Amino acid sequence: MSYFQNKSKIINDPVYGFINFPDDLIFDLVEHPWFQRLRRIRQLGLTFYVYPAANHTRFQHALGTVHLMDTALTIIQRKGYELSREDWIGALIAILLHDIGHGPFSHALENTLVEGYAHEEISLIYMQELNKIFNGQLDNAIEIYGGKHPRKFLHQLVASQLDMDRLDYLRRDSFFTGVTEGVVGSERIIKMLRVVNDELVVDRKGIYSIENFLIARRLMYWQVYLHKTVIVAEKMLVKTFERAKLLTQSGHRLFATPALDACLNMDPKNMKVSLSSMEFLEVFSQLDDNDILSALKVWQNHSDPVLAMLSEGLLNRKLLRIEIQRSPFSKDRIEAIKTEVRKKMGWDGGFTDYLVFGGMVSNSAYNDEYDQVRLWDNSGKLIEFTEASDIINPAILSQADNKYFLCYPKWVNLTKQ
Amino acid sequence: MSYFQNKSKIINDPVYGFINFPDDLIFDLVEHPWFQRLRRIRQLGLTFYVYPAANHTRFQHALGTVHLMDTALTIIQRKGYELSREDWIGALIAILLHDIGHGPFSHALENTLVEGYAHEEISLIYMQELNKIFNGQLDNAIEIYGGKHPRKFLHQLVASQLDMDRLDYLRRDSFFTGVTEGVVGSERIIKMLRVVNDELVVDRKGIYSIENFLIARRLMYWQVYLHKTVIVAEKMLVKTFERAKLLTQSGHRLFATPALDACLNMDPKNMKVSLSSMEFLEVFSQLDDNDILSALKVWQNHSDPVLAMLSEGLLNRKLLRIEIQRSPFSKDRIEAIKTEVRKKMGWDGGFTDYLVFGGMVSNSAYNDEYDQVRLWDNSGKLIEFTEASDIINPAILSQADNKYFLCYPKWVNLTKQ
Amino acid sequence: MSYFQNKSKIINDPVYGFINFPDDLIFDLVEHPWFQRLRRIRQLGLTFYVYPAANHTRFQHALGTVHLMDTALTIIQRKGYELSREDWIGALIAILLHDIGHGPFSHALENTLVEGYAHEEISLIYMQELNKIFNGQLDNAIEIYGGKHPRKFLHQLVASQLDMDRLDYLRRDSFFTGVTEGVVGSERIIKMLRVVNDELVVDRKGIYSIENFLIARRLMYWQVYLHKTVIVAEKMLVKTFERAKLLTQSGHRLFATPALDACLNMDPKNMKVSLSSMEFLEVFSQLDDNDILSALKVWQNHSDPVLAMLSEGLLNRKLLRIEIQRSPFSKDRIEAIKTEVRKKMGWDGGFTDYLVFGGMVSNSAYNDEYDQVRLWDNSGKLIEFTEASDIINPAILSQADNKYFLCYPKWVNLTKQ
Amino acid sequence: MSYFQNKSKIINDPVYGFINFPDDLIFDLVEHPWFQRLRRIRQLGLTFYVYPAANHTRFQHALGTVHLMDTALTIIQRKGYELSREDWIGALIAILLHDIGHGPFSHALENTLVEGYAHEEISLIYMQELNKIFNGQLDNAIEIYGGKHPRKFLHQLVASQLDMDRLDYLRRDSFFTGVTEGVVGSERIIKMLRVVNDELVVDRKGIYSIENFLIARRLMYWQVYLHKTVIVAEKMLVKTFERAKLLTQSGHRLFATPALDACLNMDPKNMKVSLSSMEFLEVFSQLDDNDILSALKVWQNHSDPVLAMLSEGLLNRKLLRIEIQRSPFSKDRIEAIKTEVRKKMGWDGGFTDYLVFGGMVSNSAYNDEYDQVRLWDNSGKLIEFTEASDIINPAILSQADNKYFLCYPKWVNLTKQ
Repeated sequence: MSYFQNKSKIINDPVYGFINFPDDLIFDLVEHPWFQRLRRIRQLGLTFYVYPAANHTRFQHALGTVHLMDTALTIIQRKGYELSREDWIGALIAILLHDIGHGPFSHALENTLVEGYAHEEISLIYMQELNKIFNGQLDNAIEIYGGKHPRKFLHQLVASQLDMDRLDYLRRDSFFTGVTEGVVGSERIIKMLRVVNDELVVDRKGIYSIENFLIARRLMYWQVYLHKTVIVAEKMLVKTFERAKLLTQSGHRLFATPALDACLNMDPKNMKVSLSSMEFLEVFSQLDDNDILSALKVWQNHSDPVLAMLSEGLLNRKLLRIEIQRSPFSKDRIEAIKTEVRKKMGWDGGFTDYLVFGGMVSNSAYNDEYDQVRLWDNSGKLIEFTEASDIINPAILSQADNKYFLCYPKWVNLTKQ
Repeated sequence: MSYFQNKSKIINDPVYGFINFPDDLIFDLVEHPWFQRLRRIRQLGLTFYVYPAANHTRFQHALGTVHLMDTALTIIQRKGYELSREDWIGALIAILLHDIGHGPFSHALENTLVEGYAHEEISLIYMQELNKIFNGQLDNAIEIYGGKHPRKFLHQLVASQLDMDRLDYLRRDSFFTGVTEGVVGSERIIKMLRVVNDELVVDRKGIYSIENFLIARRLMYWQVYLHKTVIVAEKMLVKTFERAKLLTQSGHRLFATPALDACLNMDPKNMKVSLSSMEFLEVFSQLDDNDILSALKVWQNHSDPVLAMLSEGLLNRKLLRIEIQRSPFSKDRIEAIKTEVRKKMGWDGGFTDYLVFGGMVSNSAYNDEYDQVRLWDNSGKLIEFTEASDIINPAILSQADNKYFLCYPKWVNLTKQ
Repeated sequence: MSYFQNKSKIINDPVYGFINFPDDLIFDLVEHPWFQRLRRIRQLGLTFYVYPAANHTRFQHALGTVHLMDTALTIIQRKGYELSREDWIGALIAILLHDIGHGPFSHALENTLVEGYAHEEISLIYMQELNKIFNGQLDNAIEIYGGKHPRKFLHQLVASQLDMDRLDYLRRDSFFTGVTEGVVGSERIIKMLRVVNDELVVDRKGIYSIENFLIARRLMYWQVYLHKTVIVAEKMLVKTFERAKLLTQSGHRLFATPALDACLNMDPKNMKVSLSSMEFLEVFSQLDDNDILSALKVWQNHSDPVLAMLSEGLLNRKLLRIEIQRSPFSKDRIEAIKTEVRKKMGWDGGFTDYLVFGGMVSNSAYNDEYDQVRLWDNSGKLIEFTEASDIINPAILSQADNKYFLCYPKWVNLTKQ
Repeated sequence: MSYFQNKSKIINDPVYGFINFPDDLIFDLVEHPWFQRLRRIRQLGLTFYVYPAANHTRFQHALGTVHLMDTALTIIQRKGYELSREDWIGALIAILLHDIGHGPFSHALENTLVEGYAHEEISLIYMQELNKIFNGQLDNAIEIYGGKHPRKFLHQLVASQLDMDRLDYLRRDSFFTGVTEGVVGSERIIKMLRVVNDELVVDRKGIYSIENFLIARRLMYWQVYLHKTVIVAEKMLVKTFERAKLLTQSGHRLFATPALDACLNMDPKNMKVSLSSMEFLEVFSQLDDNDILSALKVWQNHSDPVLAMLSEGLLNRKLLRIEIQRSPFSKDRIEAIKTEVRKKMGWDGGFTDYLVFGGMVSNSAYNDEYDQVRLWDNSGKLIEFTEASDIINPAILSQADNKYFLCYPKWVNLTKQ
């Protein structure tokens, strides 16, 4: 059982009922302003334009992963694997903070707002700074998060094909979007986890749950995360901020909160050099969904027509048309659409690229970076999941599932016949 | 919208909230004793030995399918397909009565209790007799049920890869067993149904829901319907009744309700000849789970050791051991086990076959008898699902997924190493 | 935390997700045939005639109460109250077995099938016999069940205004009937339990949850437990068995399973004398819903018109008409109806009393036998709930809420104007 | 049945499953930027500080009320009351727009941000302007909203003790906070609605559902809406904006979005005079949660210590201490606390009043402004609910339930003994 049940605080979670903070240190980290910021960042960005209830936050998700981690470690210990209090709490902290480096609308704006930083790196910077504040109590968590801890499975619980991150977000996103059939059996999968040679494996009889998990995940990708309306909204958001940065860096002064203003003015060329982590965190910690949405409201009246059109469209859900297909769009068709837009608007090419653009989105059931799921037989044998499952096409599993999209204004006449 | 909402009666259903009886005729059929009998037949037979809450009945399931059928027809009509009141109500009745021919513990005892009849045939006999009682008002329903109706899709809503039967039972069984990740998006799939050339098809964007449906169905098969404890319990039930029939037909008089007694005494050789349908229905209508369980309670004290052991084991959940594997069990091993049992019990071979036996269970994602699911493109093109989905291995899909089992007493020493 | 998590078995429960058997002894008791019998007894008797999904069993309920008891003891210990392993397991067993003495359709048939025994007494006999079988390991549980244990609150967790019994059954019955607004916050109430002077109290801030609990309970009474269709069905069942007993004891031989036959032949006058507990348990353990329903199916064709009519009506949901009102029905009206029935059927008075009868049903929010709920202030003060709540009328709370009913055949013309 | 099912759009709602837009006009109104703004306003303001998942918006709630209204009208029509298409759609629009005049954190900031306007008045202004845009198609809705429509019950469905507004918000808030026992049987209550003499009444047998509704509502008030942490956060928000207005109006220039800036600069004395509705709507339509939270982030670094402390406390959930009691706090105690704060901070009185303050919160089960709920007997008689229910204390029902609160910094030593 968990070491940490005594001084617990309890919060309500519609997904799991009640969630304990299993330890005071967890509670103190949650109270820190850097973590509280996650209350102001939606887990699914602009997805609320398709699923209006999808306003749940990274704060809720992070607490949910702590709940699942505590359950998983309890199961693993119950199956006879001894775990020290330090390792236990390290794993809880590593998962609590795994997403603390996400900025607003991160799925879309990562690498646009703050170029050159992935959210994982920023999470690490936060952990290191928090470790100073909390007198080294995060040493273990940082090792686990970075994959440096000798007990490999602790890292796998934080980042692998079946980590607590995705077991929570799939379940939670399914709950809040209302896409009920996307539900994954998080609790059943966790009950079948096991540690063999310090590696995380799944009991063999869990094979159908894993199949179900992979297919539910795929459903959630195409039905939610890469829903075409979500794609077009997110791409418009990226275009808006690219435009805003360009305008700012060419001397225009746009309305922005101080934190957003700092981002718009960052010089991407020497980012990694010019900012010490504390300076950077100072700015980044002030940035959340509110800065973005506040700016859009003002920018919709800006004199730059591109910035104004995109901002107004995003705010009022007047989105570009989007087409999706399996193969790339022909250059001729894209060119023809651009020409029509240019002609109609009386614009030059630069403007048009903000309203007519394409690209590719991709989903693979397996993440390339991670090892395969392995199944554990009663006999002690380990088998790769792809070998054991016949119905899931193994070739497809780790191969990216690509779709191409093309966006342009709804008044364009050159829609597909 | 449905033609039938005016005089409706409403009942509570924990799965869908409220269910309407959309028409008085439906209500009158539900009131008939032949249909009321379904309140006394569990949907999942002995599955309650694994999932204690799986006591839901065929009565609830049948009402659930009516609810889904009414929803599906509403959607189809809303998409512009005109449907007459007669066809509508015919489809509702066909699905309401599709399972009325099931006997108690039908999954196990079909073809043991009443040899030579499949439940589909008995359902048809019931419909024909009810049609007489209700003055021909079931003509349409019988045509639809039998696949004779010109609008082919109506039959497909009753019996096909995506019929209302399985859309309800998968959802309902998942609910009552508590295997929440087996939930299928019945309502979402129904919203994507469409009729093209009088055939039932699914909107192309529904592909992920279909994938999810097939994998969830597979999960439910191995986790619930063919769970090894369920298999051993059901096979023991079959053996018990085979024994009871043999004893009866060789002159022993076993305790039984009159209806069960009639079954035990039926001569399988001339069944189809000797019984007019009304005589047969008379007996069959009195048969439900209570007759079976009542008999087991008395039989556990019978002087025949096989009948007593099996009955007592079933009642008190003292089941045989079961092994499951992908390949057939070796004859040598089976023989060795039988020898041990014979020696230990001082029995001859006949007895032993009731306690040591094997077999095969099988599940295929697709039913061979039915056409493939077809997807409908906006362009009007129809594509087979297996062509459109890359992740699901098409070769596997309609191929049976077989497992072999072997059952024997727990005290046998020859368990697998 | 619980002492017992190590060797746990897990089962699925649609209400709570997963339930642990926290200790091997609990598991062994569950495996015993006397407990397995509860799988064959519906929690809500004939309520399925109104709420078709209400087929859940006393088996599920008993496991649910164990889950809540384990949670409650964990909370209490976490708040600083030290509890020994023996007391803990004693409380788990006491609640597990609290309903083991229920017979089939107990709400209706208690005191008809087996006269002179209340189910609580039979539960105690079972516990005492099991204690012999399990070598005294139930000593503690029996003390707790009987209110003899020094830690008074343990008994209160088994039987009081807020015991684990009703916290489970209200929640569970609400779930399976689909009367979702009857849900009580079992888990929230349990989180606010506390032990003061060895007595169970509730944190003061829980007052709104208690109010809600009492009103939800009241809703469940009138909407479910005392729903007028449930009342008439249960009263018909009582009449049926009174008739069957009379016929049996006046020399007729009715179809019955051996266990039911023994009940029909019991002489109520010297019951407590003539049966040693083991003899009695032998019979009683073989009795469940199946015996009752099997008998009704045969009796519907019996030559005694009363027995046949009642049995047939019950089986096929052709129930008597029932009227409900706040004041007693006038003798004149009852007499007039009886006269009409007698005339129409050509019967004498004795027969008529089985088809025309009235009575009273009653519900009080508080059970008289138990102490009031007490609330615990942060200051340490204890207040009676009725003093603390202003909205709930205290006079009404422990006062019975009575309604009168009158049942008679539907073809009677003297219905109320 | 509804007139409007044909061209429907469907959206996912985790509370009800799927919601239809029953008519194109509803859909067009939803698309309007003024309505889209509701996506950016949380239904429960700062409640997410207690219940982290309470981020649901007024947008979702408004769609939910449309769903319930459509269901209620369908039920009423099915019971034989004829309703024209115009009245039907009028009622849908009236409920869709009933909350469109809410500003951000309206529960707290109403009358602080925009003094002199209640949200109901602003909703009406919006409806009138939308009526111009939509060529008079909202005439009927405006009559219904304003209580001027001849069919009185239509207004009652929008605003009364049992209106669709509270039937949705209680259910929805219970869902998202996770306070599951606060769930009200919205659908069951709606099924028991009826129109008698153009007035909305409830079938008599619904009395227990109404009792349950009132007590669940009371639970939600004290557990959620008036939870002490919610009160202190909201009161701090009010103080923050009072301070910001004072600073602005005395010449300081605070960071603010243009819309918020306009609010801070509004002169309350001549508000109703100086602003034409379109000018006002222009500003108000740009105002949402983002403006408030963005400002707080900047203000936490302002040189005014009061503004900075309150803003920083709110953002990072470092709230004042709050005490709650039934009787008013003594002036002496408040004065003593103020003195300590003044001394410790070296402040004068004006500053202190922002950090030490008290007040009263109040909840009554019934709203005074509305008529009582009336119950309809089968005999045709109407009875007041308070007469019919004995358990609910009628004197208390419409009487306000008051509590007093006192807030002050956590470092104050004079906490209650």
